[in-house]
Amino acid sequence: MPIKNGKEYIERIDRQHINLWYNGQRVTGLLSEHPVFRGLIHTQADLYDMQCDARYTGLMTYKSPLGDDPVGLSFLPPMNREDLLQRRQMIDLWSNRHHGFLGRSPDYMNTVLMSLYTAAAILEEDDPKFANHLRSYYEYCRDNDITLSHAFVQPFASKWSAEADPIEETLACKVIEATDEGLIVSGAFVMATQGATCEEILVLPTPSFTFSEDANPMAVAFAVPNDLEGMTFVCRDSYAHDSTFDYPLSSRFDEMDTMVIFDKVLVPHNRVFIYGNENMANRLLTEGNFLAHAGYQVVSRYIAKTEFLLGLIQSLAEEQNVTLEMSTIQQISRVMMTLENLKGLRLASEAEAAANELGYYIPATSPLLAASLQFPDFHLEITNIIQMLSSSSLIMSPSGAYLESGVQPYLENYLKGIFSTAKERVALFRLAWELGAGAFGGRQNQYELFFLGSQKMISSRLYNCFPNQDGYKNMVSDFLQSNKA
Amino acid sequence: MPIKNGKEYIERIDRQHINLWYNGQRVTGLLSEHPVFRGLIHTQADLYDMQCDARYTGLMTYKSPLGDDPVGLSFLPPMNREDLLQRRQMIDLWSNRHHGFLGRSPDYMNTVLMSLYTAAAILEEDDPKFANHLRSYYEYCRDNDITLSHAFVQPFASKWSAEADPIEETLACKVIEATDEGLIVSGAFVMATQGATCEEILVLPTPSFTFSEDANPMAVAFAVPNDLEGMTFVCRDSYAHDSTFDYPLSSRFDEMDTMVIFDKVLVPHNRVFIYGNENMANRLLTEGNFLAHAGYQVVSRYIAKTEFLLGLIQSLAEEQNVTLEMSTIQQISRVMMTLENLKGLRLASEAEAAANELGYYIPATSPLLAASLQFPDFHLEITNIIQMLSSSSLIMSPSGAYLESGVQPYLENYLKGIFSTAKERVALFRLAWELGAGAFGGRQNQYELFFLGSQKMISSRLYNCFPNQDGYKNMVSDFLQSNKA
Amino acid sequence: MPIKNGKEYIERIDRQHINLWYNGQRVTGLLSEHPVFRGLIHTQADLYDMQCDARYTGLMTYKSPLGDDPVGLSFLPPMNREDLLQRRQMIDLWSNRHHGFLGRSPDYMNTVLMSLYTAAAILEEDDPKFANHLRSYYEYCRDNDITLSHAFVQPFASKWSAEADPIEETLACKVIEATDEGLIVSGAFVMATQGATCEEILVLPTPSFTFSEDANPMAVAFAVPNDLEGMTFVCRDSYAHDSTFDYPLSSRFDEMDTMVIFDKVLVPHNRVFIYGNENMANRLLTEGNFLAHAGYQVVSRYIAKTEFLLGLIQSLAEEQNVTLEMSTIQQISRVMMTLENLKGLRLASEAEAAANELGYYIPATSPLLAASLQFPDFHLEITNIIQMLSSSSLIMSPSGAYLESGVQPYLENYLKGIFSTAKERVALFRLAWELGAGAFGGRQNQYELFFLGSQKMISSRLYNCFPNQDGYKNMVSDFLQSNKA
Amino acid sequence: MPIKNGKEYIERIDRQHINLWYNGQRVTGLLSEHPVFRGLIHTQADLYDMQCDARYTGLMTYKSPLGDDPVGLSFLPPMNREDLLQRRQMIDLWSNRHHGFLGRSPDYMNTVLMSLYTAAAILEEDDPKFANHLRSYYEYCRDNDITLSHAFVQPFASKWSAEADPIEETLACKVIEATDEGLIVSGAFVMATQGATCEEILVLPTPSFTFSEDANPMAVAFAVPNDLEGMTFVCRDSYAHDSTFDYPLSSRFDEMDTMVIFDKVLVPHNRVFIYGNENMANRLLTEGNFLAHAGYQVVSRYIAKTEFLLGLIQSLAEEQNVTLEMSTIQQISRVMMTLENLKGLRLASEAEAAANELGYYIPATSPLLAASLQFPDFHLEITNIIQMLSSSSLIMSPSGAYLESGVQPYLENYLKGIFSTAKERVALFRLAWELGAGAFGGRQNQYELFFLGSQKMISSRLYNCFPNQDGYKNMVSDFLQSNKA
Repeated sequence: MPIKNGKEYIERIDRQHINLWYNGQRVTGLLSEHPVFRGLIHTQADLYDMQCDARYTGLMTYKSPLGDDPVGLSFLPPMNREDLLQRRQMIDLWSNRHHGFLGRSPDYMNTVLMSLYTAAAILEEDDPKFANHLRSYYEYCRDNDITLSHAFVQPFASKWSAEADPIEETLACKVIEATDEGLIVSGAFVMATQGATCEEILVLPTPSFTFSEDANPMAVAFAVPNDLEGMTFVCRDSYAHDSTFDYPLSSRFDEMDTMVIFDKVLVPHNRVFIYGNENMANRLLTEGNFLAHAGYQVVSRYIAKTEFLLGLIQSLAEEQNVTLEMSTIQQISRVMMTLENLKGLRLASEAEAAANELGYYIPATSPLLAASLQFPDFHLEITNIIQMLSSSSLIMSPSGAYLESGVQPYLENYLKGIFSTAKERVALFRLAWELGAGAFGGRQNQYELFFLGSQKMISSRLYNCFPNQDGYKNMVSDFLQSNKA
Repeated sequence: MPIKNGKEYIERIDRQHINLWYNGQRVTGLLSEHPVFRGLIHTQADLYDMQCDARYTGLMTYKSPLGDDPVGLSFLPPMNREDLLQRRQMIDLWSNRHHGFLGRSPDYMNTVLMSLYTAAAILEEDDPKFANHLRSYYEYCRDNDITLSHAFVQPFASKWSAEADPIEETLACKVIEATDEGLIVSGAFVMATQGATCEEILVLPTPSFTFSEDANPMAVAFAVPNDLEGMTFVCRDSYAHDSTFDYPLSSRFDEMDTMVIFDKVLVPHNRVFIYGNENMANRLLTEGNFLAHAGYQVVSRYIAKTEFLLGLIQSLAEEQNVTLEMSTIQQISRVMMTLENLKGLRLASEAEAAANELGYYIPATSPLLAASLQFPDFHLEITNIIQMLSSSSLIMSPSGAYLESGVQPYLENYLKGIFSTAKERVALFRLAWELGAGAFGGRQNQYELFFLGSQKMISSRLYNCFPNQDGYKNMVSDFLQSNKA
Repeated sequence: MPIKNGKEYIERIDRQHINLWYNGQRVTGLLSEHPVFRGLIHTQADLYDMQCDARYTGLMTYKSPLGDDPVGLSFLPPMNREDLLQRRQMIDLWSNRHHGFLGRSPDYMNTVLMSLYTAAAILEEDDPKFANHLRSYYEYCRDNDITLSHAFVQPFASKWSAEADPIEETLACKVIEATDEGLIVSGAFVMATQGATCEEILVLPTPSFTFSEDANPMAVAFAVPNDLEGMTFVCRDSYAHDSTFDYPLSSRFDEMDTMVIFDKVLVPHNRVFIYGNENMANRLLTEGNFLAHAGYQVVSRYIAKTEFLLGLIQSLAEEQNVTLEMSTIQQISRVMMTLENLKGLRLASEAEAAANELGYYIPATSPLLAASLQFPDFHLEITNIIQMLSSSSLIMSPSGAYLESGVQPYLENYLKGIFSTAKERVALFRLAWELGAGAFGGRQNQYELFFLGSQKMISSRLYNCFPNQDGYKNMVSDFLQSNKA
Repeated sequence: MPIKNGKEYIERIDRQHINLWYNGQRVTGLLSEHPVFRGLIHTQADLYDMQCDARYTGLMTYKSPLGDDPVGLSFLPPMNREDLLQRRQMIDLWSNRHHGFLGRSPDYMNTVLMSLYTAAAILEEDDPKFANHLRSYYEYCRDNDITLSHAFVQPFASKWSAEADPIEETLACKVIEATDEGLIVSGAFVMATQGATCEEILVLPTPSFTFSEDANPMAVAFAVPNDLEGMTFVCRDSYAHDSTFDYPLSSRFDEMDTMVIFDKVLVPHNRVFIYGNENMANRLLTEGNFLAHAGYQVVSRYIAKTEFLLGLIQSLAEEQNVTLEMSTIQQISRVMMTLENLKGLRLASEAEAAANELGYYIPATSPLLAASLQFPDFHLEITNIIQMLSSSSLIMSPSGAYLESGVQPYLENYLKGIFSTAKERVALFRLAWELGAGAFGGRQNQYELFFLGSQKMISSRLYNCFPNQDGYKNMVSDFLQSNKA
């Protein structure tokens, strides 16, 4: 059971007939042929093919501890600097393939699961079985190359209902009943990105507190296949299209976000990692160094995306013949500056990485949070640069169908650029439109704005994890104490 | 031949079978029933009905100088303060009906034509007939309530080709031949907004200069019905939808932008306003006080839009239960501040209005350009506020079809707000999505960013029209000259 | 007892030997000859002369209700639009004389006192004598043209000590004892601007609450001459200089800020306006429309300052020969835009002014707060523009003494501009330095940043006073309710 | 002739009686006792003492190639990674001593000279002697620990006069005559920082072009002691003070900027590095990798300064008791983010360093320019944070003299903080004032804004030196070419 290839990925997704709804209709038929999902599925299949490609397998896999099979490097818990750099190389290979547009390329969730796995020991405090469940599940996913999504944000009203009556009336996810076979769970989650195009889902809610000594029914974490009885997936509007010419990004990279509803779902005991202890979810993230491990994957994705966006605005500036204008130079140099920042921050996270008490090698968190604090503003800024450079061509770049229609001669003539054919020029601006004005770009922007939490949350995290805080204050007070009148 | 109502508007549009293309296909059938156009057409019909509604006719029309029929107030050349305020009231009535989302509601082009008309006398310098043509055309539009679009931006490459060879090889719009019946014109224009949903088009290109003493064939201005032989309209992608619940804005307000191609079109002589004189287009705009008259319409549209957006973010803040957070208060108070700015600037344009030498009463341009300089940045800012306030609900607000499907009970339960039903909450966030992440909002944003030109152009115009510039410098030099050692 | 002139102002200040300290030394001698105060005192004397100048008296005074003498228009409670516009004209005359650099030109405090006076009736709820005291004091100041400062911000620690023990241990200003002659008061206030160059001081602290039914000893308001026993004034560092060439602003406009300490000061009963009622201070400000009346004075000062700053950056751009650069045009046009905003907001405050239930004519508050919300950011922005335009000349513009020294020939040669002599060029950049890098400009900036409170406070005030808030939300909900599926 | 200590530095400065003017007066007496210079001189002496301190000598020096004496590490041309890191350590030691407030600590100019030295070979193209002069001068400075300033910015009008008549009328620095003893040079330079507190000055003007085949008299570069006949130094206003309590920064760190005038100064031949070849100055900077070597020193200074500023705002937040406010957390976390950026960029410049064809090991320039592009904006931002956190205490923190005067008891009482004495609180806010509102901070800000050129210049440099530019554009065009319809 080694790494899987694209064909296997598609087969597994197609085989699983989950309770999936799109625009008020139950989705039937093969997902890999459904217009809403097929573009993304084939993009993702291409990523899986890549790791099976002889040119890359050595760079993207390692030998499973449980056998001789190669398994994905994104599952590797880093124990030293070399492990870290191998992980980076692997992440870069995938990120540069999807240019950072996939927030949920498989390495992301593999990394998340790995990070939780490294903290499994703390689950033993409640019951050794929980730790075992988590370790086994990690090995299962690693050795079967399971494609995973996750769910942790609950519906808006669930927080309020949980405060009003945490047991009876709450909308929050909770255990209804514990049976011999498992836990019966009900609840809902918003924004399980790629929920429908994964095989399983990891559920790790932040529980509301009951302040009772009894087991908190809202304190639960588990992972299940997507096709259990009682599970429902509801999609947002699709932004996907088939034409790569007309919609170069959304035809490939539209990761459908789903709402996942659990209605008395039976979760087998061996898939339960937390039950009853309301502190454990947060501890698992903290002691598993979630922010460090995930942040390290994310910064590489940021870099890949920034490089693509830099290429895009360079291309737009050239196409619009404004490369010599100072305002263009200032716009592009700011993108270069951000790219340097991100690369420097990744280097810093490696340079200041250190082994924790369990021997895992943890990249420094503070530079990674610094990256996540600046990237959303940068994403808005570069979106605006795209808009400014494109002006009316952002909107007025007719679809490819015209270029094979009766008006083709007009368009060939009137839409050509100085150095480009009409087709080349239109292709470039349709790419710009997807990011600068289309729904795909709008969702990308919103996704980046909230990827690791709101700006306030990331600020607080950086503020709290920043090393040696007293050192700076002491420097100032020492300086002032050396004053003489 | 009085003002028309919505039904008449629709009939005239449907009667005209223009050579219109959408996504590579010739459009046939009635536009008012075509999914790409019907939403906007019915919105616009509602505007025309409004002026025929007894409650509003008195406020929105005046008696035609050529008869007793009421004609639209947006055609009225203001001669005094009362005229100006009447125009404002009329514009407000329409703007508040479409909440500022229509950049090309009929009052805009009526105002543009009026402004050119007031400068018709300068055309007599070339030939009295040109002035007569313009005056007659203005009267024709006014007394027949013609719905007009306009075209002035030429294809990107036309400027370069015109420099290379202004006569033979140019892509720029030019007169191919002058015949007894009229001028034969070829050329193309990008971004004729609402090109297909108007009856006629006013063409006023900025000509390339030839520096020759002969008549410049690129110096031409005219107006024609949309259905002349040789005219082709090419559409951008549509953002229109039918469901007002799912797409409350694009179902109503998607003003299709078109590229208009003239291929040896015969323009009747009496529709030609400029021919041969390359300075005249610019002079017509300047001496017709285009920026003042158009800017005065635009600022009222900005105000209507800002009021709607203020209501939207107030509603979002309430829905998200964050009205007491300082960051919300700061966001909302900045919108209030901008609304006060815009209203104050409109007042200033009225307070400093003055009659020109022809007796027309011209609103002050400088405050209006100040409004146009700040509105694009504000539009970006409020878009970002919408994104920040909405977080995941911006994306994850399922379409209305779900609310009548098998998953309806889940959604009723899990998507409700603290004070709202799921349906109310979803409706609000779908509105937010259209502006904060969807293609309609993306186009609105781009439209506002370039409405009266780029930021650089508006800065230059404000810089140049600002009154009493030497006065400020002299104040400083006087102050310094009062220095003693 | 009419308006006073400059000579009388100086005589009154010199006659009063207050307990004033500068840099750890008791100040003795005449203030009008003291290097720290003389520049400002002569600037202020010039303002008083102006109102006695026949060219201006008619525009700057009205006849006292208590006699035939002319009194300052800034004391006039506006009863109608004409009163308001007369007030504006008067304020403009003074603001344009000091170019907005005096935050405490006499019209400011006169306006504040007038606003409190209009609400005197509410003091009758506690005791009719309090209302009488306030009315009499207002008349006294008006008819004697008293120069007034005020104090309301208490020391940082006073708030905390008042919470810990409001009676015994508090540092907050409080009444120690009530005697037949008056109230014995102790406490301190930071930032009484121009404390030493005024005749009297109005003290209106925001009291800490005791939640007791007894009279709150911290709830007190009064006005006293500056030279009472027990009063001490402590100065910040002076930024004043004598040379108008070297320091064109601080030589004229350095309004010394003082800390004022009351140590068992006997306040005569007829000077007490509030005693015991902890709600009254806030009500007096609210019902006296402090923000509206003060804001109306302030916006005129903003305008005068902005006009001067516009002239300065125009002059700098010309001196640096960069008037044709797009970045310069964009910088200057943003200043023009802000000037238009401020003028428009003032117009709006007049256009929406209305009489309150007492018949006073109140300018609309919301546009004035909008001005105060944007001015601090603008002040930072223009400071930065000054820095950017000046580059090394901001720092390297040697003092005037060099121009009469042995190195004068070198400097004449090497410091000249393209269109200017060395002396002219240096004079301009020394003015720029005072605003862009010197201590005077630093204090101006800080003063503007906090003039009517922090940005948070002004945001909250605007948010709360904005008219018709529900109207906007209802517009959005009406719009959504018109949705069909 | 080893490294010098502080006493030797002072002796050498005092021994040299240069023609120095302050405020129109010739300066006589010992500079080390002059109130304008003594603070900085003693600070600088402390730096020199440090390198002679046994704890640091090993870290801050290396053995001179010409003997066994230790010489300063900032003179070391790096040949490999270890050299670079040793240089960094040395720079950090000094930077952390002066907290980044000295832009011209000795390591800066030592680094500049070292960078030019590494490119000496190109001077051989004109004449081998020029290369020898530069190499000898470098060795002389290194082995005698010469304190150096430099001059390259010429007066504003010199550029225009050089264009009008480059030979006769120009104000630009030029060779008047070549004699047997040397070149006779006239000209002037603005902004030789620390001109008076150094021993020698390196002069490297950017020459105006003559487009003549003759030797361009304006193309000249040399270094001379400060006390040659014909040299004059003119100071800007001093911001220095003696009291470290009242002025903790300007009492120590006010690096006086001087204008340096050469009036027929005889420059000995062996001190001339360039003469006649107008391309050579620019080539020397480019091939000497000036931006890389200087930028590497500068980024370490930025880091030291940012750490101090972080400590300051943390201290201010604590003193104002606002550490729990979200707005404070957001402000401070942005400073932390910038500190992470700068440290990451320094790491990147090391990680991507490479040997050039001459074997010198050059830090990557692009990350260093990215640091210099963001630091000026950050400096403005943190200045504003200081202002915001300090509010009225920024201005109203009385001088130390009060704390030993008759009003001391009042101030002890009323100016204390929650956790601090009045003296501690005042000391902190006087530090804040120096940066947030005082002239020292104003000059620091202007200095940082233009340290390596204007934002436009740094943008252009980053834009031009950014590696692999075509790579990004090609990535986008490859991506688009993979489109299918």
